[in-house]
Amino acid sequence: MADLKLPSRSEDFSEWYNQLVLRAELAIYAPVRGCMIVRPYGWALWENITAQLDRRFKATGHVNAAFPLLIPQSFISKEQSHVAGFRPSWPCYARRRRKTGRAVGHPPDFGDDHRPRLREMDSVVPRSAGADQSVEQRGAVGTAHEAFLRTLEFYWQEGHTAHATYEEAEAETRLMLDIYTDFAMNEAAVPVIPGRKSSSERFAGADATYSIEAMMGDGKALQAGTSHNLGQNFAKAFEIRYLDQAGALQHCWTTSWGLSTRFIGAIIMVHGDDQGLILPPRLAPHQVVIVPIFKTDEEKALVFEAAKKIREQLVKAEIRVKVDEREGQSPGFKFNDWEMRGVPLRMEIGPKDVAKGSVVLARRDRPGKEGKNFVSRTVLPGRCSNC
Amino acid sequence: MADLKLPSRSEDFSEWYNQLVLRAELAIYAPVRGCMIVRPYGWALWENITAQLDRRFKATGHVNAAFPLLIPQSFISKEQSHVAGFRPSWPCYARRRRKTGRAVGHPPDFGDDHRPRLREMDSVVPRSAGADQSVEQRGAVGTAHEAFLRTLEFYWQEGHTAHATYEEAEAETRLMLDIYTDFAMNEAAVPVIPGRKSSSERFAGADATYSIEAMMGDGKALQAGTSHNLGQNFAKAFEIRYLDQAGALQHCWTTSWGLSTRFIGAIIMVHGDDQGLILPPRLAPHQVVIVPIFKTDEEKALVFEAAKKIREQLVKAEIRVKVDEREGQSPGFKFNDWEMRGVPLRMEIGPKDVAKGSVVLARRDRPGKEGKNFVSRTVLPGRCSNC
Repeated sequence: MADLKLPSRSEDFSEWYNQLVLRAELAIYAPVRGCMIVRPYGWALWENITAQLDRRFKATGHVNAAFPLLIPQSFISKEQSHVAGFRPSWPCYARRRRKTGRAVGHPPDFGDDHRPRLREMDSVVPRSAGADQSVEQRGAVGTAHEAFLRTLEFYWQEGHTAHATYEEAEAETRLMLDIYTDFAMNEAAVPVIPGRKSSSERFAGADATYSIEAMMGDGKALQAGTSHNLGQNFAKAFEIRYLDQAGALQHCWTTSWGLSTRFIGAIIMVHGDDQGLILPPRLAPHQVVIVPIFKTDEEKALVFEAAKKIREQLVKAEIRVKVDEREGQSPGFKFNDWEMRGVPLRMEIGPKDVAKGSVVLARRDRPGKEGKNFVSRTVLPGRCSNC
Repeated sequence: MADLKLPSRSEDFSEWYNQLVLRAELAIYAPVRGCMIVRPYGWALWENITAQLDRRFKATGHVNAAFPLLIPQSFISKEQSHVAGFRPSWPCYARRRRKTGRAVGHPPDFGDDHRPRLREMDSVVPRSAGADQSVEQRGAVGTAHEAFLRTLEFYWQEGHTAHATYEEAEAETRLMLDIYTDFAMNEAAVPVIPGRKSSSERFAGADATYSIEAMMGDGKALQAGTSHNLGQNFAKAFEIRYLDQAGALQHCWTTSWGLSTRFIGAIIMVHGDDQGLILPPRLAPHQVVIVPIFKTDEEKALVFEAAKKIREQLVKAEIRVKVDEREGQSPGFKFNDWEMRGVPLRMEIGPKDVAKGSVVLARRDRPGKEGKNFVSRTVLPGRCSNC
């Protein structure tokens, strides 16, 4: 099984990353250069990320909407002529189309609202959107990592709001930065430093750009989410206006903020080790994997029955659990496989464990004997969600 | 307010539909012909639809994945040369790209799997995907309804599976038809007839096409979801193969199945009346809207406090509830507005109701006095979810 070993992180971080993405079954490369297919394991991780963000967005009064793939080319030229530093090319155009694919707040669409409906109608967050080459893709990582980091197309949520004053827009910009920080720290266990970008790193067309920056395993920083105060720049370019109390038309103050599948890259690079991926328990598609151990058919029946009961118990406790029922694979193969795929907790159960009413729990983040424990089945759900 | 009245359904069904979509704030038309912007109210409805479908798909062992926007043009020509009746044109190409945008199972992507991983890896369901002109868009509705029905781009879920035998593929095709039927009847309260399409209505490239058909308010049938047994047709065109037990390569038997935002059109046309939309309670973005009624500031404070308490009570009972706190709009305006937008249950609360510890409940599906009841606040959550 020597050929299955990853390159070590200290030896070749970039190669470690690229092989890990494939072997952990997160994504594979598509036939079109720069495009990736996000495999079910990777997509389940992204679904958990977006669910946690969506919960936070909705709790702060934001709503979702969907915008079409296609916008008139004239909108692109308009943006180009009004926003310094914005240089569309054909590929950029193709990508922006998709950006608006689910993104709300492409300014002309505010047109039918005559009042600033702050965070009510105009403040929207798409569930996921498409390809855009933003400042996020010119991050600090200078190596050749590909999937989730430098692909032509990626997925993200994109939020937009319109406000009556600069102060309101600035407060919203910082609120969303706080939400990204909270999400990164408390759901993904990724330590980040929130801060304001220098004028050279600012998004073209923004008055201020804030970001969360995380430290990767190779000692480099990665920009993992951004929040922009757009001032009145886009409002003036696209005539986004509202009627004030006195009945006069005023330009809005707008914001935008986004977090992309690049964050999956951050999770990989922050938590992973030479054995593979390590997923934060709150976002992991499988929080616990049960590996049944047996030799005879009798033992198999006994162990599978116990595994099934434990699964039911954990499902009831809202723990995402999978029983590895694959035929023809040894327990050792399965251990390595789930280690590579970063499942936070492995549960081993054999005939002796069934007799004793116990299981073996092995923590992915503490390899070897240190993270291994015999645990009575009577305390199981609690020990799985809090170990 | 006479100009706010919809055309009656019997008078001009098509105009009734088109105006209702706009006035209920479900969608508006985008600047590119044939494209729509799904507004937050419409998108929340679609989110509830996809959540209910996703739950059913996952319970039957299906997983989600995401495919890129772009595929090589050669794939299109290949499909054209192998599948009789498939005629790509430029617009069709543009749409297909997006179809694969989230759809899994575009056949070459099965290439790295050497075993038929039935409903494990290859059986995937995208959360939402994009534009495709399928047999669904050539439905029985011959009028000029636009949004959700005849747009160039729409959203959908698309599922694909690969199997070792014809029988397995056929069982999967029918299982998904059953799931669509169950969803339509039990979540959307849309009565449908599941059945097999004639050979002339069959999807090009399929051995058998099944669909659910619903009866609209104008007496016409609408195809509301489809499930295809693709036989070995696509497997042979794209070399989708697996290793059988004897170690020989065999072509797979594949299926595909989808349900789109067209289903929102079905909900509108099945349930709506001359006053506007009527949403099925299990899918409605707001299941209950509370309209506070008051004249003085004192009354306002009293009524808002009661409304807030009731909201908390309903949220705890997992009922989706909104308090209409809009300033400067009369209760009558709000009643009409929520009637137009199809909220299943309206709750009115004024100072007298607060004193009596009661509220007024008005059912959207039973207009007038018949659907109106005075209800004690002590029995509220139950009466809201079961009336």
